[in-house]
Amino acid sequence: MWYTEQQTPHFGITAKLKETLHTETTSYQELAMLDTLEWGRMLVLDGCVMTTDRDEFIYHEMIVHIALSAHPNPQKVLVVGGGDGGVIREVLKHPTVELAVLAEIDDRVIEVAKEYLPQISVALDDARARVEVGDGIAHVQEHPGEYDIIIVDSTDPIGPAVGLFAKSFYESIYHGLKPDGMFVAQSESPFFNGDLIRGVQADVRSLFPITGLYLASIPTYPSGLWSFTIGSKTYDPQVIADQARSASLVTKYYTPELHRSAFELPRFVGELLK
Amino acid sequence: MWYTEQQTPHFGITAKLKETLHTETTSYQELAMLDTLEWGRMLVLDGCVMTTDRDEFIYHEMIVHIALSAHPNPQKVLVVGGGDGGVIREVLKHPTVELAVLAEIDDRVIEVAKEYLPQISVALDDARARVEVGDGIAHVQEHPGEYDIIIVDSTDPIGPAVGLFAKSFYESIYHGLKPDGMFVAQSESPFFNGDLIRGVQADVRSLFPITGLYLASIPTYPSGLWSFTIGSKTYDPQVIADQARSASLVTKYYTPELHRSAFELPRFVGELLK
Repeated sequence: MWYTEQQTPHFGITAKLKETLHTETTSYQELAMLDTLEWGRMLVLDGCVMTTDRDEFIYHEMIVHIALSAHPNPQKVLVVGGGDGGVIREVLKHPTVELAVLAEIDDRVIEVAKEYLPQISVALDDARARVEVGDGIAHVQEHPGEYDIIIVDSTDPIGPAVGLFAKSFYESIYHGLKPDGMFVAQSESPFFNGDLIRGVQADVRSLFPITGLYLASIPTYPSGLWSFTIGSKTYDPQVIADQARSASLVTKYYTPELHRSAFELPRFVGELLK
Repeated sequence: MWYTEQQTPHFGITAKLKETLHTETTSYQELAMLDTLEWGRMLVLDGCVMTTDRDEFIYHEMIVHIALSAHPNPQKVLVVGGGDGGVIREVLKHPTVELAVLAEIDDRVIEVAKEYLPQISVALDDARARVEVGDGIAHVQEHPGEYDIIIVDSTDPIGPAVGLFAKSFYESIYHGLKPDGMFVAQSESPFFNGDLIRGVQADVRSLFPITGLYLASIPTYPSGLWSFTIGSKTYDPQVIADQARSASLVTKYYTPELHRSAFELPRFVGELLK
């Protein structure tokens, strides 16, 4: 048995299954937990790979350590989405962090990750983590000026995540951040979603004085190249604020040297920002 | 109809076909020219995607412009393999180049590329290009001290390309280069071929005083992340020797800023070099 994901109408990936561990229809989406021979366990939501045992470190490290290393003292962090817990795990690697809130709308993602992805969800029970099942957009609106960092770990811009790619949400995020706060959102593939990246960048640029786009290579995501959009009120996201903290992170992908170079874009990607 | 390539025994890509334009068994390999809806025309050798209309620019630019930009005056360049002509096309973007020799063992690759991939093979008829159908290893051995740059544009290390990953070949390359020469070879995926990268790097390091590994994102290649190994007698491949020439290149992926950052490796890749 093979699991095949059509990443576009005309292209996809296919992975040989050891077994299907769990499937269910939650209140929000189709959820499947697969065990694959190449990537280990694989969480699939609405037919899209969200994370796998073998390559999850890339996405989780790269959505977290750029913003947190560029902030001199990130204490309070909000993660919108990301019910598998991988982002929280990386956030808590920063000893400055006192509270990491997870606002995940679908509690079944959290529960299934706890059961089947123990290495990814491991930090959800940490004393510094607080899990809030509910609407992340409402959470941001109800906590003005509260966060140093907001991380948007969304699914693709269809289904429950549509609102997480709206300009009104980035406006709420702006108000949810402290005066020197910073936010980062996954923003899809430069090969397949150029128009979306262009739109998100324009929206963020209209709200934040400092913006950025950086890339990471994630084999199980469409095209293997993934983008992250950053908006910052004060700090330059390309500059590490605390070299010692950045250098002490135990990682498999992120390095302090890679921090800056992740913003060096291939020409066709850079042109999306013009 | 879909074309599915098993990039590993347990993982692959699948692309919807518009039509199959040509298939044949050459003296060296199985050759197929497909027309796909996502990637345009696609050259497949022995069941592996070699190049596609839509993403060929990445591989061809990145295997060429790092070494040629790091060399102050590349005049004579050898390309081993690469019968589709894409590497020659990029080499000839450097006005310093007086002669670009293509040593391709399989003339059918050249002919089929000329027929079906005109934008890739376009430069094979250039006055500065010379096509030599034959064994690239023998060519290198018969031309000691002749080349400023040697580029190894091989297929995967099975079938006709096995010898192109052998230490004895790198030794021949060393002798085929001028005293300040440099070579670059594609060296597969850091996700799927870590042992091969480690071995190639060790072999090259035992022969060349300066070595390097850099990466590029190529969606239709296994894992989407590809590595290139460089060996240099004199010049640091990370440093652009002629800024004006590098900046004047008309490219879609390579930029002078990306030149340096392509060598900044994710931690798990950097550890392959230790």
